Amino acid sequence: MRRLRVIGIGAGDPDYVTVGAVRALNEVDVFLVLDKGPATADLTAARRAVCERFVEGEYRFVELADPERDRDPASVAAADRYTRAVDDWRTDRAVLLQRAIETEVPDGGTGGFLVWGDPSLYDGTIRVLEEIAAAGELDIEWDVVPGITAVQALTARHGVLLNRVGGAVHLTTGRRLAQEFPPNADDVVVMLDSDLVCRRYTDLDLTIFWGAYLGTADELLVAGKLADVVDEIAAVRAAARERKGWVMDTYLLRRP
Amino acid sequence: MRRLRVIGIGAGDPDYVTVGAVRALNEVDVFLVLDKGPATADLTAARRAVCERFVEGEYRFVELADPERDRDPASVAAADRYTRAVDDWRTDRAVLLQRAIETEVPDGGTGGFLVWGDPSLYDGTIRVLEEIAAAGELDIEWDVVPGITAVQALTARHGVLLNRVGGAVHLTTGRRLAQEFPPNADDVVVMLDSDLVCRRYTDLDLTIFWGAYLGTADELLVAGKLADVVDEIAAVRAAARERKGWVMDTYLLRRP
Repeated sequence: MRRLRVIGIGAGDPDYVTVGAVRALNEVDVFLVLDKGPATADLTAARRAVCERFVEGEYRFVELADPERDRDPASVAAADRYTRAVDDWRTDRAVLLQRAIETEVPDGGTGGFLVWGDPSLYDGTIRVLEEIAAAGELDIEWDVVPGITAVQALTARHGVLLNRVGGAVHLTTGRRLAQEFPPNADDVVVMLDSDLVCRRYTDLDLTIFWGAYLGTADELLVAGKLADVVDEIAAVRAAARERKGWVMDTYLLRRP
Repeated sequence: MRRLRVIGIGAGDPDYVTVGAVRALNEVDVFLVLDKGPATADLTAARRAVCERFVEGEYRFVELADPERDRDPASVAAADRYTRAVDDWRTDRAVLLQRAIETEVPDGGTGGFLVWGDPSLYDGTIRVLEEIAAAGELDIEWDVVPGITAVQALTARHGVLLNRVGGAVHLTTGRRLAQEFPPNADDVVVMLDSDLVCRRYTDLDLTIFWGAYLGTADELLVAGKLADVVDEIAAVRAAARERKGWVMDTYLLRRP
């Protein structure tokens, strides 16, 4: 049996780490890190910074190359031991991670995942663990330590409420927002939107609270009437992406 | 100028307190506590427990009787110094709290509010401070320290994700849910529902993840097909309310 802890470390600021997460960090034998894309180096560095600050004594950090990107030769070799034809119900990620858990986490030991924000919101770690458990080849159990989400970092930094009195809040993606502005919520949080699709709703007299790299030294905040500030946000966002090579942002749209 | 810190202390479990909240707690000169209803004694005790655990040295705690309930005679006297006719745009709460800030927080000092969960989600503290600032009689500034919400405690304790891949999440109230089941989200979180109005949607083949007193020693969790478990939840909920005199609960409804 291998125990896994899925630890939400909050959205950027190490001060967002909870006391429970600090305890969990100190109970982990090895941290498994699986990132992808241009933000990988920065995100891994941020996770290491959290461990440096909060883990007492030594800790072990294993970085896994994401199967969707340039692969680490060792990881590829490990993954290929599985016959893809048999395992086609499993994602490459699950295959890679199962092998890593088996080889890196000692039987009876504890592996840890450091999840940006909260593991329950727009993160794939729990889903992959469910896949591995369903495969039934490796005996694992896990628990989840909640963390401060980017949504909460956004509202706290802007000093605003997420909801109106008795109102509803809709959390959605850029892709879904492109189809329709949710008619049944006065407050709409948009994640995973690389195109600022909110631009098409400037006629709704919305206020936007936008933030990027929330909780970090690079944090950017813009707020105002959507129609007035959307060009500024687009420019700020493009410049930041150019400068850092990646951007992670989210925003709240509020009806009048 | 009086500085105020609106500190999210998370949903019940002191382990949900963040490192940043611990620092903020230690920078506060006096904590102002404003509760109401049958849960008041328990909530105040829980806040004191957080201070006992995390505040180094002495701390001062001022409990204010909520104007909507039995009033503390001293608080009433303070509030009555304001002419209600002139201040009718202000709520009783704002009147009471402005007076308390003025008398209890030293000029140049820092007052603290210990908010259950996160100050941005279904909490009135920020709204009341905005009222006081708008009145312009007392010079205040505040910041917000985010906390783990009951929503995150719920998903973490059930070990489930809040959203589906690319899906939307709708946060709403019992009152709104009674009017309509949100058509545009597969995952719906319901707060402030004392009547389990989800009962009217048993034909939608929903799964429910329900939790009460989340993060506390009294925590109750029930999950299953809504049609199968709604009676059990109603019974568990009624028994708990009978036993403790109050109940705070929330639930996630998931479409098939």
